[in-house]
Amino acid sequence: MEHPPIITLTTDFGTQDGYVGAMLGVILGICPRAQLHTITHAIDPQDVRGGAQALATAAPWFPRGTVHVGVVDPGVGTARRGVVVEVGGQRFVGPDNGLFGPVVDALEAHSDRARWLQIDAPGRTLPHISSTFHGRDVFAPIAAHLAAGVPLSALGVELPDPVRLPPPLCRRDGDAVWGEVVTVDRFGNLITNIPASAVEGAPDVRAHWVDHPDASAVEGLLRSYGEAVDGGLLLLVGSSGYVEVAVNGGSAAAALGLRRGARLQLVAQRPAQGSM
Amino acid sequence: MEHPPIITLTTDFGTQDGYVGAMLGVILGICPRAQLHTITHAIDPQDVRGGAQALATAAPWFPRGTVHVGVVDPGVGTARRGVVVEVGGQRFVGPDNGLFGPVVDALEAHSDRARWLQIDAPGRTLPHISSTFHGRDVFAPIAAHLAAGVPLSALGVELPDPVRLPPPLCRRDGDAVWGEVVTVDRFGNLITNIPASAVEGAPDVRAHWVDHPDASAVEGLLRSYGEAVDGGLLLLVGSSGYVEVAVNGGSAAAALGLRRGARLQLVAQRPAQGSM
Amino acid sequence: MEHPPIITLTTDFGTQDGYVGAMLGVILGICPRAQLHTITHAIDPQDVRGGAQALATAAPWFPRGTVHVGVVDPGVGTARRGVVVEVGGQRFVGPDNGLFGPVVDALEAHSDRARWLQIDAPGRTLPHISSTFHGRDVFAPIAAHLAAGVPLSALGVELPDPVRLPPPLCRRDGDAVWGEVVTVDRFGNLITNIPASAVEGAPDVRAHWVDHPDASAVEGLLRSYGEAVDGGLLLLVGSSGYVEVAVNGGSAAAALGLRRGARLQLVAQRPAQGSM
Repeated sequence: MEHPPIITLTTDFGTQDGYVGAMLGVILGICPRAQLHTITHAIDPQDVRGGAQALATAAPWFPRGTVHVGVVDPGVGTARRGVVVEVGGQRFVGPDNGLFGPVVDALEAHSDRARWLQIDAPGRTLPHISSTFHGRDVFAPIAAHLAAGVPLSALGVELPDPVRLPPPLCRRDGDAVWGEVVTVDRFGNLITNIPASAVEGAPDVRAHWVDHPDASAVEGLLRSYGEAVDGGLLLLVGSSGYVEVAVNGGSAAAALGLRRGARLQLVAQRPAQGSM
Repeated sequence: MEHPPIITLTTDFGTQDGYVGAMLGVILGICPRAQLHTITHAIDPQDVRGGAQALATAAPWFPRGTVHVGVVDPGVGTARRGVVVEVGGQRFVGPDNGLFGPVVDALEAHSDRARWLQIDAPGRTLPHISSTFHGRDVFAPIAAHLAAGVPLSALGVELPDPVRLPPPLCRRDGDAVWGEVVTVDRFGNLITNIPASAVEGAPDVRAHWVDHPDASAVEGLLRSYGEAVDGGLLLLVGSSGYVEVAVNGGSAAAALGLRRGARLQLVAQRPAQGSM
Repeated sequence: MEHPPIITLTTDFGTQDGYVGAMLGVILGICPRAQLHTITHAIDPQDVRGGAQALATAAPWFPRGTVHVGVVDPGVGTARRGVVVEVGGQRFVGPDNGLFGPVVDALEAHSDRARWLQIDAPGRTLPHISSTFHGRDVFAPIAAHLAAGVPLSALGVELPDPVRLPPPLCRRDGDAVWGEVVTVDRFGNLITNIPASAVEGAPDVRAHWVDHPDASAVEGLLRSYGEAVDGGLLLLVGSSGYVEVAVNGGSAAAALGLRRGARLQLVAQRPAQGSM
């Protein structure tokens, strides 16, 4: 049996205002069979990078054919363009402001290169487009038409130069890697952009905070939160394959007083290398 | 292919307590094919007007046939009545306390007059009705039966005098309009009840705050947030067709120190009128 | 017409991080017809008892055949086991840490005894199991396979000794009952573990706070919040069949300065009993 088309939403709208509901209604008016799922509406207002991280964490796990609508859109109503991206059999619809860069990178690692289109489909948006709510008037209807079977090529024209967020710092030099905290999750885990490969197989791993010499350094790589003492700081490879700093049963962000953007240096001494 | 019936929920329950889940379970027990969608569960506790605004923002965008359950219900268990309303092909189920007034007004502007029923359907509620949770025991099952095809007329009797919230102030006198802030959204935008028609075509628009002479007045009508300088105050017509006061990249509510209910006077000078 | 299988989620993940979305994606990849519903993602981080209460409030109302995934999992990646429980025709999937105890107790009161399995189904999890996110790598796929029709017996082995949370205090002695606050809901209602049977038919009911002699005692059992004066404290039997302390139009938790775990003594004098 054919399953209903899947559409997800990722926004900074919160849920108290009815804006999300308006998008749901528009989508169901066009594609009433669609299954609608929330990735998140709790992105901080206008935090494009936060929205990009949430999409990169969640969207790769969805099946081919899924349509993801992302709306974190400080430039709504200005000259910023709208985009539809297809990669790995999934489609993304939203503003051209970098929101989809990280998830596209993640999916391109396991598929063909993404195809980017600039939205240009007057008959596929709402008839009246407001200047402040393209989520409802442009992106929701475009996504619904995609889910209903309208081909990608009917929705826009090739976009050679999609906007990209500046990538967070990550640099390697011998045993040392410099990276930064890209997400502080709800548990206060500090998730960095340093990939697992930088620490795997290294018996001695040590991280310190480049701009916060007073914040505690962290030593030793564990496999799970529960391997640390209660309330103890630890380093581990998180569920997305990046190094994270955590506190067993607590919040590393609170314990260290650090936020997204905090830079760290990590030294991973490998057995093959000489040591003093 | 027939699509599954659509039911939405709007409550002040939050999500942490399992109350929403209990309603979902009751609905699915009666109508397991139903597609369930959240408009919001983040209405402030017992804030009927806030719930009414969220419904008015979201519900008009849903397709005909949708059933909306609304539960912001400080009077639960007292003599307050339950209602089912049909308007524009959509149905609303919840307490008779004014919650559905604004959305019914919005839908009546484009359809026949609403039909209001007082719920009276002993066999269509749960067998035991608690005195504190009619969302689960009355409104969820009534909505599920509606979605499953039970006709409206089987669910109650005509209600000639539904409760209405006192409408927020909006008065016009020549170039001047007095209105008030009816919603402060998650972005801190101050959304008023002054319709677009009061400002359209007027080159000079100026708003000041009647009860807060120290709060900055706002001048000039723009089309989008991004047309203002960064951090600048602006007036625009929002996505629901009402005048709003915003800050580009920030919160107007925080910048001005204002909340819902703040009254403003807006002067829109039109070309055709003489000026000094 | 056969309805799609129903899966619910209950976690402490919040929604801002994309973790919930990753679970949704994994489930839909295995069982794309599934209807996915949120009970809550707002459990306080690692608050197993809070998650257990939300499940006990919501899950009993779902139809037979529903699969509930619960992930409040401070011990993820340690030796703690995973479980699948079947009771009353519903199934529960998550960590073996007591999360499902209260809901299983509630369902066993109206059905056969629960069947507990320890998860052991290598081919039914994701191929790579991280040590920090079994919600995505183990519990979501197991739930999706259950919903898709895989029999319970294919997913694990009988578990004779599931972990149980220590039950909250509830003791009765003549007219007096000692209990405690097990949930403070979003409205600030203090929901106790004292069953309705302790107060039904008693004309005089009085509660005082064992460890907080300065917190106001509460007298008289009402039927609904609105029967108390505005802002007045009241006792009633709540929608789950337990005594609760509330404030009409306000928060009892704020008014009394009490939290979960606050112990109370309730004296319910019955007509049949002599009094001085």
